[in-house]
Amino acid sequence: MPSGSAPAVAENGGPGAGGHAGRAERLREAVAAAGLDSLLVTDLTNIRYLTGFGGTNGACIAGPEELIFLSDFRYADRAAEEVEGWEVEIIGGEWLVGLAGRLDGRVGFEDDRLTVRDAAKLAGAASEGVELIEAGGRVEALRRIKDRSEIEAIAASSALTDGLYLELVERGLIGRTEAEVAGFVVARMREEGAEPSFPPIVASGPNGASPHAEPGTREISANELVTIDMGAELDGYCSDCTRAFATGELDVFASEIYEVTLNAQEAGLAAVAAGREAVEVDRAARELIEAAGYGDFFGHGLGHGVGMEVHESPRLGPRSNDVLMAGDVVTIEPGIYVSGRTGVRIEDLVVVGETGIERNLSSISKKLNRAA
Amino acid sequence: MPSGSAPAVAENGGPGAGGHAGRAERLREAVAAAGLDSLLVTDLTNIRYLTGFGGTNGACIAGPEELIFLSDFRYADRAAEEVEGWEVEIIGGEWLVGLAGRLDGRVGFEDDRLTVRDAAKLAGAASEGVELIEAGGRVEALRRIKDRSEIEAIAASSALTDGLYLELVERGLIGRTEAEVAGFVVARMREEGAEPSFPPIVASGPNGASPHAEPGTREISANELVTIDMGAELDGYCSDCTRAFATGELDVFASEIYEVTLNAQEAGLAAVAAGREAVEVDRAARELIEAAGYGDFFGHGLGHGVGMEVHESPRLGPRSNDVLMAGDVVTIEPGIYVSGRTGVRIEDLVVVGETGIERNLSSISKKLNRAA
Repeated sequence: MPSGSAPAVAENGGPGAGGHAGRAERLREAVAAAGLDSLLVTDLTNIRYLTGFGGTNGACIAGPEELIFLSDFRYADRAAEEVEGWEVEIIGGEWLVGLAGRLDGRVGFEDDRLTVRDAAKLAGAASEGVELIEAGGRVEALRRIKDRSEIEAIAASSALTDGLYLELVERGLIGRTEAEVAGFVVARMREEGAEPSFPPIVASGPNGASPHAEPGTREISANELVTIDMGAELDGYCSDCTRAFATGELDVFASEIYEVTLNAQEAGLAAVAAGREAVEVDRAARELIEAAGYGDFFGHGLGHGVGMEVHESPRLGPRSNDVLMAGDVVTIEPGIYVSGRTGVRIEDLVVVGETGIERNLSSISKKLNRAA
Repeated sequence: MPSGSAPAVAENGGPGAGGHAGRAERLREAVAAAGLDSLLVTDLTNIRYLTGFGGTNGACIAGPEELIFLSDFRYADRAAEEVEGWEVEIIGGEWLVGLAGRLDGRVGFEDDRLTVRDAAKLAGAASEGVELIEAGGRVEALRRIKDRSEIEAIAASSALTDGLYLELVERGLIGRTEAEVAGFVVARMREEGAEPSFPPIVASGPNGASPHAEPGTREISANELVTIDMGAELDGYCSDCTRAFATGELDVFASEIYEVTLNAQEAGLAAVAAGREAVEVDRAARELIEAAGYGDFFGHGLGHGVGMEVHESPRLGPRSNDVLMAGDVVTIEPGIYVSGRTGVRIEDLVVVGETGIERNLSSISKKLNRAA
């Protein structure tokens, strides 16, 4: 279980203020600051974040004078029940044509979500005075900074995952196939009312050399590394954690890459703080792996944001332009993967605070866990 | 179980010829016919259809001289194992920049899948001579016509769903909540190695008035209609079926809308044949609902294609431009939804043949099933 400490994010007021009304207000400010008359939001996760609506078709139009949620006739009742703080309108006929008819002036749209075809349809159906402006990422920017209730939801999801790691250790790994282990954790998540936030990775022995190995029929043996990467989605919020287990004594090579990865992971954690550039944090971990001679075997970024989606802003990696902020919830997950031999990854999920990590939501020990 | 009859689609050769090699060949012909030098495929389901690759990042470039599958380093081993008939290349560095570097001449791209932002990145990174042309739907057009093995996969998925309808009838519905019924079928699907192809709909009594009702805490009562819409995904192929059950005696209104919907559904089925326009088939069902005075209460299209995705081409509805073809697998699912009262929908999944339905994959009786 994560240990609590003084919260860096506000309970009420401030950038972390919760509730759909606060989110809509912050979006309105962002829209005005971007010089837009309104923002059209079409991504369903963003819509759920803003309004509470959980159906499969909807849109939001947010401007200084208006907060309109739109859906089709199938969701009239559901929208009336779920949507908080937005005026609900039901569109008949062709969806994009109906949406286009509601637009006016300089309208931002989510260019990172809308397809080329839908954007062209929307532009074709909009009236003369409408100017469509690429403005993706505005809601995602709000979503980065988690409020208190969101952090509690992520913590609960992470606690569930940690409990399953303990169950795996108790049951033991040797003699089980990777697929059986993955199937067990998925079934247990569902018993607990959660879903996997991504298909669990269980990579044993040589399969550990593939960072995204699909759990297969390989039976886990004694004296090898088993990397398990899993997360749950519980009440709309995700978790993500990776641990590597030793099924007995490891050879010198496996022990060494485990130690190097762990040192790198701890250096990454130590570099986390609001205001730090994501590339710096990545560098802090990566330089230890490079110094040990394994730089070519760490082919992915150090981490990513986690929230309603298991991969969201910010990105931590050598090519990221992001800067960490208090209230970000991010993974720190270096790895070393040597094809034909084995591999390892170690990952914690942490809340970024003003001067360092505010909470580490991954509670399972990293002192080379044994799970024979 | 569906009863077999003489197949309208070819076992070997012809438009239904199976296997990844045949699919790639048909795609090459479509690319040449469209006047393109190559087609860039980025949709993961299309990629799985063409190559067999099941990972989460990849692309295909198909031209007269080349069939290239691209992925990143995480999937090097998996691509080598899974991809059939395509040359495998691993891209390092930024994904879209790497992809852009492989393009040449008039390149079609999936404008209905690629976001505005990714298309702009691709165009920005491509060399001068590259012309990007909107060309979405090419692979989906191939996917419409199912080969023998695909139809068997859909039939197996549908048979699984039908078995669960029988289990529901055996267990009875009265006194159970909608959510409990939905949870039961999802759990049973998973026990059978399948996943729901969409979250099951269980809409009882007044909730039946919402075509996409989310199963809730309402307890199912005696003497009402319960509409259950569910499908499974098994071995990569989906099913979709809706039945309405009576939990005892129905009032005159519920009985009437059931009869009208059933007559409309059978008229829709009777109108299915290769060469028929989708609007005609929709009309055949819709006019019976209109004649009975419920035209305003059937607010969705008559049906849709089903395959690797639960909603795919063709679309059957008043605004569709599609024409049915032999080898299409489509739903026929009219409904009547009267807010504040109740609703009903009846849906079969059928294989389109040259002169009519070749196979009806939904085997459960529609003679107002009882499930007290």
